[in-house]
Amino acid sequence: MEMKLPGQEGFEASSTPTNVSAGELDSDLGPGPGPSPDGPSATESKELGVPKDPLLFIQLNELLGWPQALEWRETGRWVLFEEKLEMAAGRWSTPHVPTLALPSLQKLRSLLAEGLVLLDCPAQSLLELVEQVTRVESLSPELRGQLQALLLQRPQHYKTTGTRPCWGSTHSRKASDDEEAPLREQRQNPLRQKLPPGAEAGTVLSGELGFLAQPLGAFVRLRDPVVLGSLTEVSLPSRFFCLLLGPPMLGKGYHEMARAAAVLLSDPQFQWSVRRASNLHDVLAALDAFLEEVTVLPPGRWDPTARIPPPKCLPSQHKRLPSQQREIKGPTVPCLTSAEDRHRHDPHAPSPELQRTGRLFGGLFQDVRRKAPWYPSDFLDALHLQCFSAVLYIYLATVTNAITFGGLLGDATDGAQGVMESFLGTAVAGAAFCLMAGQPLTILSSTGPVLVFERLLFSFSRDYSLDYLPFRLWVGIWVATFCLVLVATEASVLVRYFTRFTEEGFCALISLIFIYDAVGKMLNLAHTYPIQKAGSSAYGCLCQYPGPGGNESQWTRTRPKDRDDILSMDLGLINASLLPPPECTRQGGHPRGPGCHTVPDIAFFSLLLFLTSFFFAMALKCIKTSRFFPSVVRRGLSDFSSVLAILLGCGLDAFLGLATPKLMVPREFKPTLPGRGWLVSPFGANRWWWSVAAALPALLLSILIFMDQQITAVILNRVEYRLKKGAGFHLDLFCVAMLMLLTSVLGLPWYVSATVISLAHMDSLRRESRACAPGELPNFLGIREQRLTGLVVFILTGVSIFLAPVLKFIPMPVLYGIFLYMGVAALSSIQFTKRVKLLLMPAKHQPDLLLLRHVPLTRVHLFTAIQLACLGLLWIIKSTPAAIIFPLMLLGLVGVRKALERVFSPQELLWLDELMPEEERSIPEKGLESEHSFSGNDSEDSELMYRPKAPEINISVN
Amino acid sequence: MEMKLPGQEGFEASSTPTNVSAGELDSDLGPGPGPSPDGPSATESKELGVPKDPLLFIQLNELLGWPQALEWRETGRWVLFEEKLEMAAGRWSTPHVPTLALPSLQKLRSLLAEGLVLLDCPAQSLLELVEQVTRVESLSPELRGQLQALLLQRPQHYKTTGTRPCWGSTHSRKASDDEEAPLREQRQNPLRQKLPPGAEAGTVLSGELGFLAQPLGAFVRLRDPVVLGSLTEVSLPSRFFCLLLGPPMLGKGYHEMARAAAVLLSDPQFQWSVRRASNLHDVLAALDAFLEEVTVLPPGRWDPTARIPPPKCLPSQHKRLPSQQREIKGPTVPCLTSAEDRHRHDPHAPSPELQRTGRLFGGLFQDVRRKAPWYPSDFLDALHLQCFSAVLYIYLATVTNAITFGGLLGDATDGAQGVMESFLGTAVAGAAFCLMAGQPLTILSSTGPVLVFERLLFSFSRDYSLDYLPFRLWVGIWVATFCLVLVATEASVLVRYFTRFTEEGFCALISLIFIYDAVGKMLNLAHTYPIQKAGSSAYGCLCQYPGPGGNESQWTRTRPKDRDDILSMDLGLINASLLPPPECTRQGGHPRGPGCHTVPDIAFFSLLLFLTSFFFAMALKCIKTSRFFPSVVRRGLSDFSSVLAILLGCGLDAFLGLATPKLMVPREFKPTLPGRGWLVSPFGANRWWWSVAAALPALLLSILIFMDQQITAVILNRVEYRLKKGAGFHLDLFCVAMLMLLTSVLGLPWYVSATVISLAHMDSLRRESRACAPGELPNFLGIREQRLTGLVVFILTGVSIFLAPVLKFIPMPVLYGIFLYMGVAALSSIQFTKRVKLLLMPAKHQPDLLLLRHVPLTRVHLFTAIQLACLGLLWIIKSTPAAIIFPLMLLGLVGVRKALERVFSPQELLWLDELMPEEERSIPEKGLESEHSFSGNDSEDSELMYRPKAPEINISVN
Repeated sequence: MEMKLPGQEGFEASSTPTNVSAGELDSDLGPGPGPSPDGPSATESKELGVPKDPLLFIQLNELLGWPQALEWRETGRWVLFEEKLEMAAGRWSTPHVPTLALPSLQKLRSLLAEGLVLLDCPAQSLLELVEQVTRVESLSPELRGQLQALLLQRPQHYKTTGTRPCWGSTHSRKASDDEEAPLREQRQNPLRQKLPPGAEAGTVLSGELGFLAQPLGAFVRLRDPVVLGSLTEVSLPSRFFCLLLGPPMLGKGYHEMARAAAVLLSDPQFQWSVRRASNLHDVLAALDAFLEEVTVLPPGRWDPTARIPPPKCLPSQHKRLPSQQREIKGPTVPCLTSAEDRHRHDPHAPSPELQRTGRLFGGLFQDVRRKAPWYPSDFLDALHLQCFSAVLYIYLATVTNAITFGGLLGDATDGAQGVMESFLGTAVAGAAFCLMAGQPLTILSSTGPVLVFERLLFSFSRDYSLDYLPFRLWVGIWVATFCLVLVATEASVLVRYFTRFTEEGFCALISLIFIYDAVGKMLNLAHTYPIQKAGSSAYGCLCQYPGPGGNESQWTRTRPKDRDDILSMDLGLINASLLPPPECTRQGGHPRGPGCHTVPDIAFFSLLLFLTSFFFAMALKCIKTSRFFPSVVRRGLSDFSSVLAILLGCGLDAFLGLATPKLMVPREFKPTLPGRGWLVSPFGANRWWWSVAAALPALLLSILIFMDQQITAVILNRVEYRLKKGAGFHLDLFCVAMLMLLTSVLGLPWYVSATVISLAHMDSLRRESRACAPGELPNFLGIREQRLTGLVVFILTGVSIFLAPVLKFIPMPVLYGIFLYMGVAALSSIQFTKRVKLLLMPAKHQPDLLLLRHVPLTRVHLFTAIQLACLGLLWIIKSTPAAIIFPLMLLGLVGVRKALERVFSPQELLWLDELMPEEERSIPEKGLESEHSFSGNDSEDSELMYRPKAPEINISVN
Repeated sequence: MEMKLPGQEGFEASSTPTNVSAGELDSDLGPGPGPSPDGPSATESKELGVPKDPLLFIQLNELLGWPQALEWRETGRWVLFEEKLEMAAGRWSTPHVPTLALPSLQKLRSLLAEGLVLLDCPAQSLLELVEQVTRVESLSPELRGQLQALLLQRPQHYKTTGTRPCWGSTHSRKASDDEEAPLREQRQNPLRQKLPPGAEAGTVLSGELGFLAQPLGAFVRLRDPVVLGSLTEVSLPSRFFCLLLGPPMLGKGYHEMARAAAVLLSDPQFQWSVRRASNLHDVLAALDAFLEEVTVLPPGRWDPTARIPPPKCLPSQHKRLPSQQREIKGPTVPCLTSAEDRHRHDPHAPSPELQRTGRLFGGLFQDVRRKAPWYPSDFLDALHLQCFSAVLYIYLATVTNAITFGGLLGDATDGAQGVMESFLGTAVAGAAFCLMAGQPLTILSSTGPVLVFERLLFSFSRDYSLDYLPFRLWVGIWVATFCLVLVATEASVLVRYFTRFTEEGFCALISLIFIYDAVGKMLNLAHTYPIQKAGSSAYGCLCQYPGPGGNESQWTRTRPKDRDDILSMDLGLINASLLPPPECTRQGGHPRGPGCHTVPDIAFFSLLLFLTSFFFAMALKCIKTSRFFPSVVRRGLSDFSSVLAILLGCGLDAFLGLATPKLMVPREFKPTLPGRGWLVSPFGANRWWWSVAAALPALLLSILIFMDQQITAVILNRVEYRLKKGAGFHLDLFCVAMLMLLTSVLGLPWYVSATVISLAHMDSLRRESRACAPGELPNFLGIREQRLTGLVVFILTGVSIFLAPVLKFIPMPVLYGIFLYMGVAALSSIQFTKRVKLLLMPAKHQPDLLLLRHVPLTRVHLFTAIQLACLGLLWIIKSTPAAIIFPLMLLGLVGVRKALERVFSPQELLWLDELMPEEERSIPEKGLESEHSFSGNDSEDSELMYRPKAPEINISVN
């Protein structure tokens, strides 16, 4: 069966080399090497595989109303899970895992063993089938006719088309030839659209029939699947037909037996066997094999009537299937932990991106070769509505970032750079990177560590009275040179030493800086707009004009009609008015009075805006998994969460009309530093040898750039994100180096990959499968990999220089709130945070994490404590004058991780972290125990463990 | 088995007639009429029952290390659920429902069938037991000795005492006589304290033993349970012993077989049968009976390694047990929906409180007779720390309520009543009610409906120029008379017509009034403390003194040193200063200027306080079900949630020191209306016949009082709350009538039961069982029924008149936030709200509610829509001048509900509502289908459905 879900991927351009769609879901389960990141050729193998068995839709029709008004009614259906018809409520139950009673399976077995089993029955219509099935010795001709008439009676399906429960109206018509055609309601069944093409049907008919002397069991496999009139709810060709009738017996005997038959038919392995069975013995053997593998729940500890919701994932079925059939299975949810995900690749061989070629620039050339074939699709794949939302979200984040860092840089460099440079540089560098880079999902930005370094460089050059921009130009030239050397020597393969330990340390630090900055800037507003404390008996503020002579007369003369002037005169104020302090100063007066420095309301209102936008964005994000609203609405709300939060904030602000601080965008296109052109002169006032001396700080900066760039790249290219187009570590570093050169020449800020925004970018581009069977959960398929969203974001950023009239309505507190949201989202998604939370939980309340099953709690806590200590150290160093060695400290994280080998066993490190290249060899290759906790109550934890949709995007979720 | 959980109920005074403790849990499962609300005699029957089988603790010891270092290790244990030892992590797994593979059960069966089964083995020690067990023909004497030595080897138990994983140190010592004594670590095992006294142990020993030629199976039931040395982790007398050894075989054969044996032994019915088995055949029959009842999960749809968390409730086991043994079962969690809860009482017989005696005042006398024996325990039962928290919480709510309603009443009656009357009346009436009433958990308060009525009464008497208080006195006298008539005629039995429909309509209305008032008062603050809009060019405010003559000189003379004066002079202001407006007015000046009416910061800061206290209280309430912190801490935080939220708000307020509006408590003890004494004169200025005319409004008020009082009483006395001491509908109404008289004479407000606060009161007094087996969930046991908390609350309220210096630090916005919290909590707990939410959910995302399985969705929505319409109508009537007929409209709700019988079938009403007395007869008595949805992902919904802890207290959850 080639599984193609119609309409699954909206605008997915099928002409591109990517063959997304649920197809890839299958390859995950195959025994092969998994989705190879080698480019377009990877997905072709699938077409060559053996043809797969079609999906089976199973329906249970029950004979009700004995003895008066006999009628067939559909009472259950199965694709992956069971749906029961709630007779009283007239609705399908929620899909659930079917549960059976053991006796009903055993009774079914004996009924089949004694009954009629027709394999490859050549019947071409329901009439023929019924004739074949009723050809049983024990029936008198009269009874046979009666039975045939009964079996041809049209069954009642529950119609799901309307909103009111409603049953087919006619139920006494005999089947004639034209009855064999499917009814309109069958074709219009919404389930039909969901099931993949090629799906087949199986029907189980059961019930109590008083005139039968003994039970009648029949199991039919049709040679050619045909649509059996209105037998099934959906107009599908039927493959299987099972009849279980008999004299009335105690309890729900036939009902349970029929359910057992339906559940059996919905089992992938039984299906496989029974499609290939050649006689009764094979069918019974398949049933026995099913029994061998069932899970048994004890009666005293489990309510047999409880309905188990579909698990988030199912065990891989390919172990159960015979080897030649491993490719064949239903659309089950694969259940891979990230540890397994990691191990699907041969752990001993690094991924091809990180294999050393041994040639100069070999890695770079390979990156270009690997990425080039994807280039057209990098634009075509962006044709999806989701990308529009992503552009809006990331654009706003980028602009906010540009403004924030622009302000900070202007502060740090005494105006040598500013918001203008920040905008221009972001736009130019970002767009160029998106066009050329190996991983175009990356968003370039000024980052905290680089800002810290630039501040130190500026104070150094001021101390030595250097001309800053020329000196900086040389630093940039040296850094670009060093980076080129790193590219040439394929140093990027060393990123394999950046395990999760390093990533988490770095990522937590960056997230904390985000959070710290957002809160800090918010609190700073309280200084800008001071609050008036209670208890000060004097308040208010007067605007006093210099002396009775001065320009008082001019003032009274020029503006005699202003309301405040009249008031001032009214009050007997000759040379004073009640103008607000800024206005007063502008008009040449002096604000006087104890209230002149207070600004009412702004501080608290800003805080309200900040909190509102933060919590609103968080809440909208959560709406995605709530029960309310149709999924389209929920997805929309959650995709646009930050945009909507910003709009809400702007609306609130506009409604109250308070003078909150607003986003300020430069209006003129010229460098911030007066009197310089866009090009930096190579030497300026500096001596020539400073250009050589610049190599020393450049060395430190190179380490920082390398770490900052590559850790982000490693995080973005994690296996869990199921990227198809591969990474380009060498190419990315090369691009960064070239942009370093460009920005240094133009006197713009330096840019590297920004972890948090890049992750938000990827998160807004998640692709998920549509469920095709009731109860199936959407599957994470990967990221919409393309270059267009990033490109548009940066073009918009460039254009924003001219968008000032619109953007000036956005209050800054709202943007701080969004920053906080981004920081919190990034921080809360790393496993480290989850382990920190474990510290606060008593052991017995801890979630049933796989990690905790394999590593003693004290060891887990020790590992967490070490990470916390490293993080604290990094934070301290970042905040002290020693910040210049910060790059080295990041490198030190790798060393600490290496040292941990002496404290933790490789097995422990495998669960707590990942393995470094050497360690991988020390672990015996054995299948990872694939125990899975039940989805249970705590959706967060179970998600943490095996939701294959991949870590809520952000970073390394277990 | 008499289940007594030691230390389960803290300070529970066991000398009182209540026999709480898990005992009542058993009676829920018994076939009898359930806990009868008939008073002390109800619980005695339990002691008469047949002796119950003890609880069984089962341990699995596995033989590991073949062939080199053989040792026994405990690898699993069972009480209710399974706990597996995580070898690598060195911890017990979370308790989970055991799952078995069918083949292992079948293998176990055949091994037992061929093996040794010793029933009533007289062994008195491990040595004797081992000798008996190894007396097998197939063993050579040499092997037998080797085997005996092995069996006597001390097993390794995982010690849970320390924090580090640690194993018993010695494992090669031979068992000697003194070894038979339990070890210290066995006695100190924390599990020992949890298990009820009388618990017995069962041990399963299994493993691969190379020197055995064929499998060796033995099953022993000891005649007298004895402690078998250090065989079990906990020092319990052993009853069962199962040995499963054999030559190495493929897979985890013996491990799975041993698990199957342990799970079998932990099954209540198997346990029961095997305790009574007299031969091998009985044991095998019990195993077969077990197999007949197991639940089977198909392999393709369920991961057999998944661990299923313990369900919130289990099906009643008594159907499975033979009839004479229905009393015997393990401490399972009973699984009753409130519908079942309701039906455990004979639906055709009203509860004894509501049975008509047919005598004048018969109901009242019966109420007194029923409540009198509980009177001493009503005080002794209050000796628990929880009551302290309840007092604090309810006290603050009551005081806030008193202030709010006091303010509103003063407003409505033009000062005829005020905060002083409100405090005094609340204290007097509340305390008296708590001392005398039938349901002392009720909190009396002014309520919205009564307030509305009083406002109308006042405008009426003003329109007719009546002396209000004397007229009101006569209204009160008439109401008391009418109520007495209602008591005499036992009219309270009519409350059986107040079904959930009526309750929910009333309760939703009251909750909405709470929410509306809280938000409205909060928004009013923005009028009191206006915000300054941006764009007004003039601001500031001057304090101007009347004329240059006037008292200007006096002002400059008396306060020459004030800073603002100096500044004023400095500014050249002769007859003006910068004093704040209130201060200015006080000193005889006039505030002038556009900024005089703005009050900076207070409005927004109040909003922040409001939101902070609301969300903080909500969050603390939720902490109870979170994973963080030990349960003691969580329970504390959640019990004190509102107190902590108030403290946080006060702290924030004090930290910033802004002049937010604070709680104002009267300081002097005298009536608000000047010139009146505490006693109201009977006629005043009114004509005598007004005292007769007062009967007309009194009639309406009587209806209102009756409805308001009795609906609340019905809600508080719901079966789900498992109240032991019975209700007292007649007595309560009698008390209200008497208090009506008293408050009318003293000119105090009128009081009836307040739904929201009373529910909060009960919620803060919830009793829950402590779990005795791992994985067992705490059980709702009932409410700490007593009179002391209410009494103390009202005494404190009275004392609060003198507590002004402390209470004045509480900002009003914080109290509004707590009001909002109470309203939201009450509103969100009624089923109606949950059905309103269903309106917003697409059908396929709706939770699997029992309701939805039995009633078509459109009917559910129709019912909800009718309720919404009624609510809207009530709200409109409440807000218009027609509010005087509001009492009749409440009565109308009962009529609407009666009319619904024509729209909905009795079956539908049974699920959507309850049945009215006549309808109950129309439903054929059939067992309610006891289908239970699985606990699943959505804890809220599953809780809604069958968490027997009773509706999160508040009101009628399903």
